[in-house]
Amino acid sequence: MNSFRYYNPVRVYFGENAVSKLKRELPKYGEKVLLTYGGGSIKRNGIYDAVRQTLLEAGKKVFELSGIMPNPRTEKVYEGIEICKRERIDLILAVGGGSVIDCTKAIAIGSKTEKDFWDAFFVKHEKPTVALPFGVVLTVAATGSERDNIAVITNWAEKAKVAYGHELLYAQFAILDPTYTYSLPQEQLIYGSVDILSHVFEVYFSRDDKNNVSDDLAEAVMKNIMANLNVALENPRDYVARSNLMWDSSLAISGLLSLGKETDWQAHEIEHAMSALFDIPHGAGLAVVHPNYLQYICKKAPEKFARYAVNIWHISPAGKTTEKLALEGIEATRQYFRGIGAPTTLGEVGIQEADIERIAEKTLLVRGSYAQMNVDDIKKILKMCL
Amino acid sequence: MNSFRYYNPVRVYFGENAVSKLKRELPKYGEKVLLTYGGGSIKRNGIYDAVRQTLLEAGKKVFELSGIMPNPRTEKVYEGIEICKRERIDLILAVGGGSVIDCTKAIAIGSKTEKDFWDAFFVKHEKPTVALPFGVVLTVAATGSERDNIAVITNWAEKAKVAYGHELLYAQFAILDPTYTYSLPQEQLIYGSVDILSHVFEVYFSRDDKNNVSDDLAEAVMKNIMANLNVALENPRDYVARSNLMWDSSLAISGLLSLGKETDWQAHEIEHAMSALFDIPHGAGLAVVHPNYLQYICKKAPEKFARYAVNIWHISPAGKTTEKLALEGIEATRQYFRGIGAPTTLGEVGIQEADIERIAEKTLLVRGSYAQMNVDDIKKILKMCL
Repeated sequence: MNSFRYYNPVRVYFGENAVSKLKRELPKYGEKVLLTYGGGSIKRNGIYDAVRQTLLEAGKKVFELSGIMPNPRTEKVYEGIEICKRERIDLILAVGGGSVIDCTKAIAIGSKTEKDFWDAFFVKHEKPTVALPFGVVLTVAATGSERDNIAVITNWAEKAKVAYGHELLYAQFAILDPTYTYSLPQEQLIYGSVDILSHVFEVYFSRDDKNNVSDDLAEAVMKNIMANLNVALENPRDYVARSNLMWDSSLAISGLLSLGKETDWQAHEIEHAMSALFDIPHGAGLAVVHPNYLQYICKKAPEKFARYAVNIWHISPAGKTTEKLALEGIEATRQYFRGIGAPTTLGEVGIQEADIERIAEKTLLVRGSYAQMNVDDIKKILKMCL
Repeated sequence: MNSFRYYNPVRVYFGENAVSKLKRELPKYGEKVLLTYGGGSIKRNGIYDAVRQTLLEAGKKVFELSGIMPNPRTEKVYEGIEICKRERIDLILAVGGGSVIDCTKAIAIGSKTEKDFWDAFFVKHEKPTVALPFGVVLTVAATGSERDNIAVITNWAEKAKVAYGHELLYAQFAILDPTYTYSLPQEQLIYGSVDILSHVFEVYFSRDDKNNVSDDLAEAVMKNIMANLNVALENPRDYVARSNLMWDSSLAISGLLSLGKETDWQAHEIEHAMSALFDIPHGAGLAVVHPNYLQYICKKAPEKFARYAVNIWHISPAGKTTEKLALEGIEATRQYFRGIGAPTTLGEVGIQEADIERIAEKTLLVRGSYAQMNVDDIKKILKMCL
């Protein structure tokens, strides 16, 4: 197990009607609250009313930033920063999924500096010294942003989708009510679950691969995601399945599963380039890219991929080479994604062979763990996705 | 999954030479540090010198409270409180295992009140509003106290061993260096590992037993503990094994595995009565009591015990009733404890049949999960331990 640091102070309230716990948290902050949300689905399903009512009963003055889009963009962050500065906001309350939360995080650090938030943090990687506190009412199980300290923001003008992390980007509290996910479109259930699985892949398929409890935990979470997604696809209102998926999303990226591990994240970066250029759903892009990325690198760590095939997919190792077993596990993943209705080819998300060059050029090359990719590698991986 | 709250803000530094990270933490506190430790083994293995040196280099004025005993007692807490108040201590640094940490926690809340700490917190369950900050340099993988918010203190005059929990009992930081456990006596390795396993049992064998990722995580941790204990018994200086055991101890009781679960803790309470009366090592008492407690209650949840038998012990369910499978899993646990050299009968820890009455009368009856025990139940369980 490699050395590590771990710190995750997010206070979680989990369960049906967890929103009632908002009352405990609100007295800790001043009276001005900025409510941030997306396209308005929370107005249709009653969540908006429940939250707003609680804020008003707690004597808060409520401001709003709505219309936060998937792959949230810098313009929306600037809009939020402007409100926070002008109105001297005391607390931001994000009601939504990863996009709303990530936009909120960027506003939280951006509104406490005179500098341009994009340039200072997302380009120059400066460290904030102060941030507005923010809380989360989660409505989608997917990105895990409710319990990580990372914001992913898209600069549409520069066609750049960039991740930025800092301790000040941990939410003060996160309210997780599994019933809030009952009414999500099936597509979002599928893409969200792919995203959760993909987060686990990014840490599980990385060194150190020696006997490591983080890998044991990761396998437990992977199996739990798949078992419960199968149930939720059959019955979207299954509380147990929705509970597990919601907590899985938070476990997957809370830091817990990567302790003592290098982690990878190259597959995520390829997808970030895809959605920066084509604005496709993150989970859809991951379903296309991740199996192919794993197949491309699996020769570098065949034992780990073979372990995955056996422990997750119960593929019999009898009479197979480690390499063959490794490939069968990856193929099982691809077939699983296909089976739940996720795309597994670029064509299905509207990307053509001619676009590969541009995506590869745009992809941030990270250190990886088993292998360091170059632009040619990315092109080859994307060709495998055709 | 039941509703839950989760909050664990302990900042962890894990790995060989993690003590070097103490330098990052010390500037956050005033100059007066109370170093708390046990019988002096840290002086023999160099840990004391390393920590003291770091404190002095950081310009701290160091006070000491040494001689904290296993099953730490109220007298030692009073001694620490007296120093903290008299010297206006700014930070307590616990260097040791669960006993040192628990004593430190009690000092942390006790030194910020004019009330008697035992009476206010451990008897009347009042809530502290402020505590002295404290950090931990861990030397034993066992109780998990480095990352939980609970202190267990023994009042020898009243023959009472009582647990008290509050958010202010979370350490500010915990330094976990697996190499610090290399030189522990084998007995402490065994008892510590039994304690970790027992913590997992207390949460795993409890409702809600429906499909629940917390149970999946618990199974991963149990298997990891046993695999790595086997290695560490063979080679006490195996870094990978020691790393896993150290992090397992922290995972087991950090709150993570009990999320969405009722938890039980009756077996721990029986052991608390045993060591309050006979001052036996906590892990030794648990090895005796826990398998018998599980056997006593297993009829209330045979499916869960059968799952345990299959998933942890790989016992074949073929041709067996659920009840038989359940009992075989428990027997495997008992045999495992015996195999690693832990006691499994009261006689082995010096307790006689004639003592059972007193232990049972002394045992705190908690709510349990599968069943509510009464004094007669406790007596029956203790008779099974003969």
